[in-house]
Amino acid sequence: MNYPKSIKNLIECFRKLPGIGEKTAERLALAVLNFDDNVIDMFSNSIKDVNLKIKRCSVCNNLTEDDVCSVCRDESRDGSVLCVVEEAKNSFLFEKIGSFRGKYHVLNGLISPLDGIGPDDINVDMLVSRIDKENVKEVILALKPSIEGETTSLYISKLLSSKNVKVSKIAHGIPLGADIDYIDMLTLEMALEDRKEIINDVKN
Amino acid sequence: MNYPKSIKNLIECFRKLPGIGEKTAERLALAVLNFDDNVIDMFSNSIKDVNLKIKRCSVCNNLTEDDVCSVCRDESRDGSVLCVVEEAKNSFLFEKIGSFRGKYHVLNGLISPLDGIGPDDINVDMLVSRIDKENVKEVILALKPSIEGETTSLYISKLLSSKNVKVSKIAHGIPLGADIDYIDMLTLEMALEDRKEIINDVKN
Repeated sequence: MNYPKSIKNLIECFRKLPGIGEKTAERLALAVLNFDDNVIDMFSNSIKDVNLKIKRCSVCNNLTEDDVCSVCRDESRDGSVLCVVEEAKNSFLFEKIGSFRGKYHVLNGLISPLDGIGPDDINVDMLVSRIDKENVKEVILALKPSIEGETTSLYISKLLSSKNVKVSKIAHGIPLGADIDYIDMLTLEMALEDRKEIINDVKN
Repeated sequence: MNYPKSIKNLIECFRKLPGIGEKTAERLALAVLNFDDNVIDMFSNSIKDVNLKIKRCSVCNNLTEDDVCSVCRDESRDGSVLCVVEEAKNSFLFEKIGSFRGKYHVLNGLISPLDGIGPDDINVDMLVSRIDKENVKEVILALKPSIEGETTSLYISKLLSSKNVKVSKIAHGIPLGADIDYIDMLTLEMALEDRKEIINDVKN
């Protein structure tokens, strides 16, 4: 005996998701059995919808259901500052902070020679043409502090050096609330190097 | 800006699954974006199917797409031995071992006075009537070694004491490959109590 066919199929689908092993897939599939009808409909439909409706924004390459995403359409946002991220989900993370009022540019990858991913495989050309077209004044590179992230940051900063645009990088250092004892050496070195002077403004 | 509506819905559905937090739900929903069309169809349909087709076997209460599950229908299996499990998934686990050739009985719960679950809330009546009807000779209790599991085992064994049926319990002890240093005290005590004599059959 094995699971009935519909459960077996569902387990197989859950297993295709990242980080889901066989035991977890079984647990998730059996949990679906207890869902209400309306949740079942929503779950089933949104899987289809995501596949049918989601496309890439023609301006910034972010995920959207329209031709141009809501950020690119929003005229109240500062188009002179672009935050360059690796993946769409990073931009949604920045949106959760809520303080960034510029726009985004999604590379959809990082340069990684070892994996055969070169500058042509990520969305850099689109970025360069946006600098000219959209009168961009600052490009903030918000890529992860890995070899690939650093390589990509370096490549983009060199590429944009001829243009009249400021290129910056988000700060790397010790995260708030972290115990300094458990921070890796590289982060500690970076934090030391990027130290900031404390200005005691006694006069005010 | 937030995720497009279809992605947001999908994240919400994944979040309803046990053990899936917000970050994981986001990761899973974005992973669905990269699925092939046929996987999308299978995923979407099996969620609906599980809800529509799966019911309880009228004999053993296991999950099935038919009125009577494949084990109960299988005449090559030994109907005189019943393995009593808490949940349907436990029976599928026993099936993976492959050596058990009896049939199952799914309680769908354990007696737990603290949670207000009494003997009437689990599938015990059906078990008692099966003993008479199906000429059962042995009932193996395969419940988890918790207070609820032990209470339920005790309740069932007392209930069946008047009947002409052998009631046994699966062995608890040190799992194979485990380091004895890391075994909890209760398991160790049980393992000591349930020790088995080693018989050196010198003559053969």
